[in-house]
Amino acid sequence: MGGSSIVGSYTREILSQHSPIPISIVRNYFLPKWISKDWFVIAVSYSGNTEETLASLAQAEERGSKILTVTSGGQIANEFGHFPQILIQEGVQPRAALPLLLSEVLPISETLVGAPMTDLIDISESLASASKKWGKAIPTPSVIVEKIHNRIPLFIGAQHLGPVAYRAKCQINENSKAEAFNSEIPEATHNEIEGFPESKASAIIPVFLRSSDEDTRISQKMEVAFDLYNEIGLNPINLHSFGNSKIESMLTLTHYLDMVSVELAEKKGIDAVNVTRIKELKTRLASKD
Amino acid sequence: MGGSSIVGSYTREILSQHSPIPISIVRNYFLPKWISKDWFVIAVSYSGNTEETLASLAQAEERGSKILTVTSGGQIANEFGHFPQILIQEGVQPRAALPLLLSEVLPISETLVGAPMTDLIDISESLASASKKWGKAIPTPSVIVEKIHNRIPLFIGAQHLGPVAYRAKCQINENSKAEAFNSEIPEATHNEIEGFPESKASAIIPVFLRSSDEDTRISQKMEVAFDLYNEIGLNPINLHSFGNSKIESMLTLTHYLDMVSVELAEKKGIDAVNVTRIKELKTRLASKD
Repeated sequence: MGGSSIVGSYTREILSQHSPIPISIVRNYFLPKWISKDWFVIAVSYSGNTEETLASLAQAEERGSKILTVTSGGQIANEFGHFPQILIQEGVQPRAALPLLLSEVLPISETLVGAPMTDLIDISESLASASKKWGKAIPTPSVIVEKIHNRIPLFIGAQHLGPVAYRAKCQINENSKAEAFNSEIPEATHNEIEGFPESKASAIIPVFLRSSDEDTRISQKMEVAFDLYNEIGLNPINLHSFGNSKIESMLTLTHYLDMVSVELAEKKGIDAVNVTRIKELKTRLASKD
Repeated sequence: MGGSSIVGSYTREILSQHSPIPISIVRNYFLPKWISKDWFVIAVSYSGNTEETLASLAQAEERGSKILTVTSGGQIANEFGHFPQILIQEGVQPRAALPLLLSEVLPISETLVGAPMTDLIDISESLASASKKWGKAIPTPSVIVEKIHNRIPLFIGAQHLGPVAYRAKCQINENSKAEAFNSEIPEATHNEIEGFPESKASAIIPVFLRSSDEDTRISQKMEVAFDLYNEIGLNPINLHSFGNSKIESMLTLTHYLDMVSVELAEKKGIDAVNVTRIKELKTRLASKD
């Protein structure tokens, strides 16, 4: 769930063209029936206290699935400590733990499905210098903040940038305490494209996430949709990721959009770290138990 | 894609707690690598000309997968006529063909995975009389139209009503030519709940889709989220589905929300049937070939 589950989406997307074994993501209390003893379940909960993950883990244990937990501690470390466990450094927000979690989950998943191993050292070096390209290859985050401030960003991704669009939506929600949405091309060109008002500027601003690794048919749909939205006055934004591989382009753009969400919070005078409403929800739920 | 692909989402959701076999949905040009000769691929394209479906079908054929096509004709009927095929009545919009498509795809899928068979005759009788309950068990669609008109509905579902929320978003897009979004509980309570502005009414109006078949933990999260949104002045809506089974509650609420989208179009003086922007997109793409 939340900041932990995005690790599953990134891993699944990176491996979908390499893995001979199905990869399922569960964001709920219930495992699909097909998750059996033959499945390998990687339970990712940074806090270790996510009740949905605990419920799913209990089901996986009952079914005899192979289990690995990835967590910083909490109930999962206590109650499921008899399974192999990767302990992650404590003390950050789950959504900020993406690099810590992904650098454990991705290599293990690549090994499990027999996919080529990503060179994470190489990518981390390139990520460390990626912000030097901001302002050249891509506008500085502050330019984007000016454009999306007072509007509702709709992040539109395709293929490997689909999960990056979803991550961006969640980061704007949690860090900037602002509304945001995401959608995916080509599906969005079959329905959502009809939804924008013709006659007046919308509250929504489309933000297209682009990549040099896009399939040509995807690029064409992205460009035609951008033009249509531009013609009706929505002032859509194109953001081109950079990097030498799909995963590098996912991570450089994630880093960039994370910074957009933090700068948007600063502009609004908001503390990006606190998530008071999620805490309030948990408090109210606890009082119902 | 679009109106045809929603059949996959409904079927997958109905069967996820019954099927010992994984069910994958592909809304793209590319099959995941794990779709092999051991998989049974049901290709659903009402028009028969959806290029993403044609591309995926060609990959499935290369890999030796078992193939069944469900279509009203088009290129799929011509180029993949050597595979078993279910021909659907022609002449309606793909999104209006959901009952025609689902009544073929669901029983076949239930047979394939060995799940109990849904009595569709029984459900169709109950659906035929469902609109008599509008105004009592659920407000009439016109009441909802008044509330969502000039705002952007966010349909929030859980479990079997998750795909119904997505269908509603797409129907508002395509029929009403209006913006709409969807999200899913519990995932939305881990991020999106932070996104609504505290101080002023939002452009977004949350519409919770409820069911008597909900898990208690889901109900509690739905209710707490509803209360939080209510307290900050968003005037959220609760819509309770009715029916004697999960699938019946999915379909009665789908029927209802379809009518909301059509009545919203009428109120806006818009032709619900035409999708001029999707046609324009196709024309522009064709000129690039």
